[in-house]
Amino acid sequence: GVNGDRLWQSLMDMAQIGPGVAGGNNRQTLTDADAEGRRLFQRWCEEAGLTMGVDRMGTMFMTRPGTDPEALPVYIGSHLDTQPTGGKFDGVLGVLAGLEVVRRLNDLGVKTKHPITVTNWSNEEGARFAPAMLASGVFAGVHSLDYAYARKDPEGKTYGEELKRIGWLGEEEVGARKMHAYFEYHIEQGPILEAENKQIGVVTHCQGLWWLEFTLTGKEAHTGSTPMDLRVNAGLAFARIVEMVQSVAMSEQPGAVGGVGQVFFSPNSRNVLPGSVVFTVDIRTPSQEKLDRMRARIEAEAATICADLGVGCAVEAVGHFDPVTFDPVLVGRVRDAVTRLGYSHRDIISGAGHDACWAAKLAPATMIFCPCVGGLSHNEAEDISKEWAAQGCDVLLHAVLETAEV
Amino acid sequence: GVNGDRLWQSLMDMAQIGPGVAGGNNRQTLTDADAEGRRLFQRWCEEAGLTMGVDRMGTMFMTRPGTDPEALPVYIGSHLDTQPTGGKFDGVLGVLAGLEVVRRLNDLGVKTKHPITVTNWSNEEGARFAPAMLASGVFAGVHSLDYAYARKDPEGKTYGEELKRIGWLGEEEVGARKMHAYFEYHIEQGPILEAENKQIGVVTHCQGLWWLEFTLTGKEAHTGSTPMDLRVNAGLAFARIVEMVQSVAMSEQPGAVGGVGQVFFSPNSRNVLPGSVVFTVDIRTPSQEKLDRMRARIEAEAATICADLGVGCAVEAVGHFDPVTFDPVLVGRVRDAVTRLGYSHRDIISGAGHDACWAAKLAPATMIFCPCVGGLSHNEAEDISKEWAAQGCDVLLHAVLETAEV
Ligand SMILES: NC(=O)NCCC(=O)O
Ligand SMILES: NC(=O)NCCC(=O)O
Repeated sequence: GVNGDRLWQSLMDMAQIGPGVAGGNNRQTLTDADAEGRRLFQRWCEEAGLTMGVDRMGTMFMTRPGTDPEALPVYIGSHLDTQPTGGKFDGVLGVLAGLEVVRRLNDLGVKTKHPITVTNWSNEEGARFAPAMLASGVFAGVHSLDYAYARKDPEGKTYGEELKRIGWLGEEEVGARKMHAYFEYHIEQGPILEAENKQIGVVTHCQGLWWLEFTLTGKEAHTGSTPMDLRVNAGLAFARIVEMVQSVAMSEQPGAVGGVGQVFFSPNSRNVLPGSVVFTVDIRTPSQEKLDRMRARIEAEAATICADLGVGCAVEAVGHFDPVTFDPVLVGRVRDAVTRLGYSHRDIISGAGHDACWAAKLAPATMIFCPCVGGLSHNEAEDISKEWAAQGCDVLLHAVLETAEV
Repeated sequence: GVNGDRLWQSLMDMAQIGPGVAGGNNRQTLTDADAEGRRLFQRWCEEAGLTMGVDRMGTMFMTRPGTDPEALPVYIGSHLDTQPTGGKFDGVLGVLAGLEVVRRLNDLGVKTKHPITVTNWSNEEGARFAPAMLASGVFAGVHSLDYAYARKDPEGKTYGEELKRIGWLGEEEVGARKMHAYFEYHIEQGPILEAENKQIGVVTHCQGLWWLEFTLTGKEAHTGSTPMDLRVNAGLAFARIVEMVQSVAMSEQPGAVGGVGQVFFSPNSRNVLPGSVVFTVDIRTPSQEKLDRMRARIEAEAATICADLGVGCAVEAVGHFDPVTFDPVLVGRVRDAVTRLGYSHRDIISGAGHDACWAAKLAPATMIFCPCVGGLSHNEAEDISKEWAAQGCDVLLHAVLETAEV
């Protein structure tokens, strides 16, 4: 098995960089803290004998050579960036578990036919720059490089500028690499494995997503002297849309979620009815049919809500992926490894989006989940145990070894 | 009558300072633009022979001497600070109309028994630092100086620090001055005068207000992987409270308003259910009984909404004034002046709060309104005509002259 203590120590060392305010991390993409995290990961990889390639999105590819010069690499990927109030494990576990796999192979002197490339994808979270999984999306040909470079953070800084500023603009053409297979190990970020007391989730699918960014236009006016019947109240329209998204999601149970995490009132002054309200609806479900229906219902019902109030309503999709089915052969290989290792497990659908969703467009891909305490993620209190971390890493080692071939 | 062209020119000159993005102004209190506006006003006043006093809240008192050394001054006050996206007239009209009254008396060589003090109160808007009418509130003994100095803007800067930084911390004890009477001329900020084609509003009352700042505590969690039934959704609670405030206000019609202009989701990331939502409910009505009932209903119903969702709910009152009845003698004097001048008019209740509300605690006080286009205020598109501005200023001149005694 892997060295669980070493994996844990690396997780704790990485968590020193970009500390949060409540025990977690704020290492948002393309910040100075992100650059520092990248340098630490680079040093560890070079100490383990890996060679680095960096592409024009800033994604880091750290490769352990294989014995067959013709064989394409097996990728182990995830991300080192975090939410503004993120946990220590979301993404980081997958990258450092990839490093632990390599370190373990080095310990044992095991050579593989296929190279192994541990990958740190840029901007997986999508918190600073929407959409999420941006670099893997460009890699998979879903987004253009120009589109990605033009993404703006809330302060108006672009992805392209910030990538250059932190010194991680690489030279490799994005997507030029070919993959033999892609594995991603991640915390579940949901409550199922812990509730059912399972050590491993064998990830068979990932639910699809829409991020619908609404711009509501009201009439900016005084809260005190503007009579109720003269208000064009974009804040009220926002409230009704939040409630409507909730009931659309509830009406599609089980297997659907919907909510709003981000909103900007403008001018956001206590005594001014907002002239504009900009917010993003996040809807997800594993069913393509439901996903399409939820989007259509939400857009139609939002239009009605706004029309009733005289509020202007524009919608832009700022994030999207269809539901994904992971490669049955790799899924089977993970399931076999778990069985061989004797870990309790169940098949599971990923609730969150992952770089694996885009990698699955290019090569056989799958994922492995470990539980997390209370199902909590995107929260500084996110937590896992050292044993949980190591168990999934064991499964990863086995599945990768079988795929990379000794 | 007054010199309407001169008044208008001064309004347009002041509007050059702290321009907004859509034709209005962003001259928020204690910013560099505020300091520049103050210096321009000071220069104009000194050119008109007024002498300046500045108190420890930064309020500017510009005095034209009277002939009787014992006589207390007649105050003409309002404010030069604006909303972040404010108009050119809200507040500014009242201050510069005071200056025009003085300029006109100078033109005519008229001396008054009582001195006349044109006043620019600090932080009337309450946009940067809640509550509104802060300096006049300290002047009236409603707030302590320590309380005022500790008010924070959204970036965490305090009133005390910022007042010092812009160089307008005066030496006068706040509230040391005594008033013979207080007049404030303002745009209506509502739709009534224009709709009824009246030139002047004789302001008899001001409605009361509560600003209730709610802090909702939810469970910060992933929007994708957190099932609907495990959410502790502070954003949904916010939406329900906005709708509830709307229905409380509607159920108290006519003569009541309620709404929300400001909200902060935290961490405000598209794929994170908010851990906290902080927002301010603004409710107003001229009826003390309704005001108390609305506050009680909103607090009780918000508590129920939050309890249903498992969301924590704390409320703090960050702004408050009871309904005000202006001085009948001064109101009668304004009404007489309007009648004498032949302007169409009606009695009106102020929808917005004004420094006059606090001055009314100290001395006979009243207000004069002119119409504004579409009733629009707290909007850069706020507009009045040169004629409207001058007509109210004429009324002000007459009422002040009668009160200051020739
Ligand atoms: N795994 C993860 O949290 N990714 C962020 C993108 C998403 O919102 O699903
Ligand atoms: N007149 C005015 O807009 N004052 C600001 C305080 C308020 O919200 O009423």
